[in-house]
Amino acid sequence: MKGVILGICPGATLVDLTHGVSPQQVLEGAYQLARSVEWFPDGTVHLAVVDPGVGGARRAIVAQGRRHRYVAPDNGLLTLAEERDGPFRYHEIENFTLPDPSATFHGRDVFAPVAGHLARGVTPSEVGPELGDPVRLELPPEECVLLVDVFGNLITTIRQGRPAEVEVQGVPIPVRQSYAEAPPGELLALWGSDGRLEVSVNQGSAAERLKAGPGTPVVVSRQVIGPAG
Amino acid sequence: MKGVILGICPGATLVDLTHGVSPQQVLEGAYQLARSVEWFPDGTVHLAVVDPGVGGARRAIVAQGRRHRYVAPDNGLLTLAEERDGPFRYHEIENFTLPDPSATFHGRDVFAPVAGHLARGVTPSEVGPELGDPVRLELPPEECVLLVDVFGNLITTIRQGRPAEVEVQGVPIPVRQSYAEAPPGELLALWGSDGRLEVSVNQGSAAERLKAGPGTPVVVSRQVIGPAG
Amino acid sequence: MKGVILGICPGATLVDLTHGVSPQQVLEGAYQLARSVEWFPDGTVHLAVVDPGVGGARRAIVAQGRRHRYVAPDNGLLTLAEERDGPFRYHEIENFTLPDPSATFHGRDVFAPVAGHLARGVTPSEVGPELGDPVRLELPPEECVLLVDVFGNLITTIRQGRPAEVEVQGVPIPVRQSYAEAPPGELLALWGSDGRLEVSVNQGSAAERLKAGPGTPVVVSRQVIGPAG
Repeated sequence: MKGVILGICPGATLVDLTHGVSPQQVLEGAYQLARSVEWFPDGTVHLAVVDPGVGGARRAIVAQGRRHRYVAPDNGLLTLAEERDGPFRYHEIENFTLPDPSATFHGRDVFAPVAGHLARGVTPSEVGPELGDPVRLELPPEECVLLVDVFGNLITTIRQGRPAEVEVQGVPIPVRQSYAEAPPGELLALWGSDGRLEVSVNQGSAAERLKAGPGTPVVVSRQVIGPAG
Repeated sequence: MKGVILGICPGATLVDLTHGVSPQQVLEGAYQLARSVEWFPDGTVHLAVVDPGVGGARRAIVAQGRRHRYVAPDNGLLTLAEERDGPFRYHEIENFTLPDPSATFHGRDVFAPVAGHLARGVTPSEVGPELGDPVRLELPPEECVLLVDVFGNLITTIRQGRPAEVEVQGVPIPVRQSYAEAPPGELLALWGSDGRLEVSVNQGSAAERLKAGPGTPVVVSRQVIGPAG
Repeated sequence: MKGVILGICPGATLVDLTHGVSPQQVLEGAYQLARSVEWFPDGTVHLAVVDPGVGGARRAIVAQGRRHRYVAPDNGLLTLAEERDGPFRYHEIENFTLPDPSATFHGRDVFAPVAGHLARGVTPSEVGPELGDPVRLELPPEECVLLVDVFGNLITTIRQGRPAEVEVQGVPIPVRQSYAEAPPGELLALWGSDGRLEVSVNQGSAAERLKAGPGTPVVVSRQVIGPAG
């Protein structure tokens, strides 16, 4: 993929975001992309491939956000990035792919060449016709575990409020400012660097400890301030 | 290695091809290199190190292909790349290494500095004398498993023909256009993105399922078209 | 982190040294940094983060060495690099961080922006006031195992002398020039590419074989030359 991009756009600066997304896990890829997008310079082209439907009927798309552009399979991988850099305008990829693309490696044959051309100045509308019905991830109802990261931290859907405590699987968990406030092995919740409330065990796995995973409810207990006296 | 290259050629664009080759597996490295070479721009310098003989008597070489240049230990690591970008002209490395190279890390002390100098414009004949007898991998006879990749896919020696079915360990396996055509858990064969026939299990390991590995015969059953009526 | 750096210094050349340091292992990170530093061009900015104390009271620092600059948490991560590129002058980070840094990801919010500004020409004294008492690692007494690498090699504290043999856990081990001199499975000691004596098993784990780890004594047996006749 990088060879193809550099063949089209020799001056491109390439950054690997992650190779650690679990196979076929679109939601996990969507999360990793979304949490990184805002930290890149304006005009960055984000090339994202988690692609269980490669070679089938799923479409390939380009999205134009407020600050960035995106190249991806049309399977919801951009849903969470759109929350941060949207609204997106979508185009279906028709031009600029390699001739005779393989049925198994669209990263190299479809997405990389389009990303290279975007980096060189091609516009999304030159890539293909506008597309009004992109596939979007169905996100879980509010206030539950969204996903579990590689350390076993529970990344929740909660992005607002000032809870003093949350409850997962009946266990009350205090909200802390940083890991340093909790002794090793202790449960804590904190605001992650991506703006989501996370439930963690300092130097351990919260997923294992609480037997929790995607969809497990997170109950927010807002602090009750009693009357004076 | 990258520090050394950038010290010699500060403008170099560095791309990591893979760090996932199994230790000491020259054939696996040769395969990963060969499948990627053609996608890089003309004039790319490929630096490849899988080097079980480091510190011993094996030579260090530079190869000039039709489009690219290569720096590697002389142990067959370039054999498969030569099939795609050859014929190669070989030179033994004598110049441009770091002074007093270590006996254990020629990647840093021998191959990286030579690659940096080639990227800056040094020619292979400046690096050392021509070499007529490079070590080449002994490739298995046609129509068997060449190697197993990290997903358990069987990469075969088969690169031509239009079989409708192959047979491995007595099991008939249909040739499909893409993974999307086979249900999860089902065996299929398909043409990989590198032009070789692969035997896979959709979301599983074909190597495990078929108890197959390098050298296992692959029987090509070409479709019989019966007479009309 | 890379997005932040490129936003500040778009022309920066980024090199990943390693993502393989074990979680929270400051000594291991210090070793990986120190063994690589000298191979990078003059003026390189090294950004190092192994940061168990993130969000707590530990300071964040910049160090100016003879050839390079460093950005790191103040927890001893620079101690071994200073042996090679020192003496260092230290400054505490006060300026150039992102506004309102998170309590959990100083790599992105504190260290990356400072590294980007240093790469653009900001000087260490612009980053913050000089700091005279940086935290330094307590190194083990001489002649023991310093750490175990991912292959199970024992990296020792020994950097000088010409021993013909060493002894670990009562087992005598010959010093060789290269791996190629020892048959597979055999114990050997050799001078690693970073200038330290290492104890290895050719294609195996010396840590497992000898049940040795950080702090295990290494006895140097210097060769006795007997009188002639």
